[in-house]
Amino acid sequence: MKLNCDTNVLIIGLGVMGGSYAKALTKLGIKVNCITKNQHDIDHAVALGCLNKGSTEIDKELVGNADLIIFAVYPHIFIEWIEKYQSLFKHGAIITDVTGVKNGVVQKVQDILRNDVEFIACHPMAGRESSGFEYSDDGVFKGANFIITPTDKNTNEGISLAKELGEALGFNRISLLTTNEHDKMVAFLSQLTHCIAVTLMNCNETPNLEAFTGDSFRDLTRISKINDEMWSELFIWNKEKLIAEMDNFIAHFEALKQDIANEDKPAIRELMQKSTKRRSLFDKPNK
Amino acid sequence: MKLNCDTNVLIIGLGVMGGSYAKALTKLGIKVNCITKNQHDIDHAVALGCLNKGSTEIDKELVGNADLIIFAVYPHIFIEWIEKYQSLFKHGAIITDVTGVKNGVVQKVQDILRNDVEFIACHPMAGRESSGFEYSDDGVFKGANFIITPTDKNTNEGISLAKELGEALGFNRISLLTTNEHDKMVAFLSQLTHCIAVTLMNCNETPNLEAFTGDSFRDLTRISKINDEMWSELFIWNKEKLIAEMDNFIAHFEALKQDIANEDKPAIRELMQKSTKRRSLFDKPNK
Repeated sequence: MKLNCDTNVLIIGLGVMGGSYAKALTKLGIKVNCITKNQHDIDHAVALGCLNKGSTEIDKELVGNADLIIFAVYPHIFIEWIEKYQSLFKHGAIITDVTGVKNGVVQKVQDILRNDVEFIACHPMAGRESSGFEYSDDGVFKGANFIITPTDKNTNEGISLAKELGEALGFNRISLLTTNEHDKMVAFLSQLTHCIAVTLMNCNETPNLEAFTGDSFRDLTRISKINDEMWSELFIWNKEKLIAEMDNFIAHFEALKQDIANEDKPAIRELMQKSTKRRSLFDKPNK
Repeated sequence: MKLNCDTNVLIIGLGVMGGSYAKALTKLGIKVNCITKNQHDIDHAVALGCLNKGSTEIDKELVGNADLIIFAVYPHIFIEWIEKYQSLFKHGAIITDVTGVKNGVVQKVQDILRNDVEFIACHPMAGRESSGFEYSDDGVFKGANFIITPTDKNTNEGISLAKELGEALGFNRISLLTTNEHDKMVAFLSQLTHCIAVTLMNCNETPNLEAFTGDSFRDLTRISKINDEMWSELFIWNKEKLIAEMDNFIAHFEALKQDIANEDKPAIRELMQKSTKRRSLFDKPNK
């Protein structure tokens, strides 16, 4: 399968991520349908011209006609959906996802999935701190990273289609990782950062702090506005790797604290010089 | 003294903050001179039209004619400067600063300062992660907070001038705090956040992480590009309060870790709901 204007795409879950996919793909002339919870979001998306049609029911025709089905829902809903409705898929359909954890999810879905349908797992590393279709914006994909996590159940055709999808959405860099590598990386880059932001936001309730804040605190807490339903599920799903990253962070943080207690200026400066140098690696490519 | 076009302003240290002050004040028609280390920065600023004149020497005339002298240098340099050169100040001059810590600095300067000169301490809560005049930008003051930390040595006139200065620079909110309140607030909002960012940037050196990063990690590490000379000095200056904030953060972070280890989804969600609600208090006012 090649991704083009004849590809019949179905998005399951028209939230912030599903909506952003719909916006990006529609701009390329690809016809996008959806199944989602709220009729309001369907009406809104159709009015904006980024959705062909949608249903709040499991519409057999919408599912059965789809060549590519994108699951933009929570992991447990994704797995339940496959268990209940996979008989509706077209022979030869390819399904993909946007799930933020892969171990446990990918193997589970691939184990229960029909043999004539392929699931190729993807993680678009771009998001918004707010959830819901009204916050969807395909602009967030520009300059961002798209990870594909193939297993031995995947075909070259499935992997190629996932790459085409990442390119079509406008991602800057498309990479392949094992599900294990992915979850380790995500535990550090994404989950640990959210744990830090939530903790920082909650750990000091001095009144009127907002009157004195600078941009540093705002930057470090932006993602503490968080979809608690989704992230609590992702944290628990990946808890072993996340806790290892939290422990590692604490050990380094305690070491810096000790340097400050000792007034060891050269040691503090060395850490800062290292972070300054390393941070330049992470500058976002120009859009 | 009122701040107006007749005020003769001298900036000591034309770095990122001194340069931003020069740009903002010049736009209001105020004549700004400076004393700074590099002739190149003086030439650059004069060419840009944001500086009247400057010197790399302690120019007696520049100092002696100044009504308002703004110290935009590191704390220990500020104190040394006052010790060595305060005899050059005009009778009735007012001096101010941009220093990120106040305890120890303000009292020390006020103790050694001539009786006919007033020091009113200020902290403009806006900055850039890069240092040097070339990164100066008075746009960073818009929507930001300006803190004045008067002591019993200050007069109403001095405090009023500091308020006028904050307004002239374009700050959104101007507040008064004691030096102790200021340092406690800064330990949490600014120094703790920099400790977190530096630690996060350094604690995992897995190769090629940058290929997979999203905006969350970039946001939390932006300020790990850091002026190590200045910040190591500020951390040590304020170490007691900073270490207390680091310990408090660790305690809360460990509690979240325990909730994740216990798979206590309701507890995790409650923390996230709290952080989401609290974070909205800190949204930046529209510029």
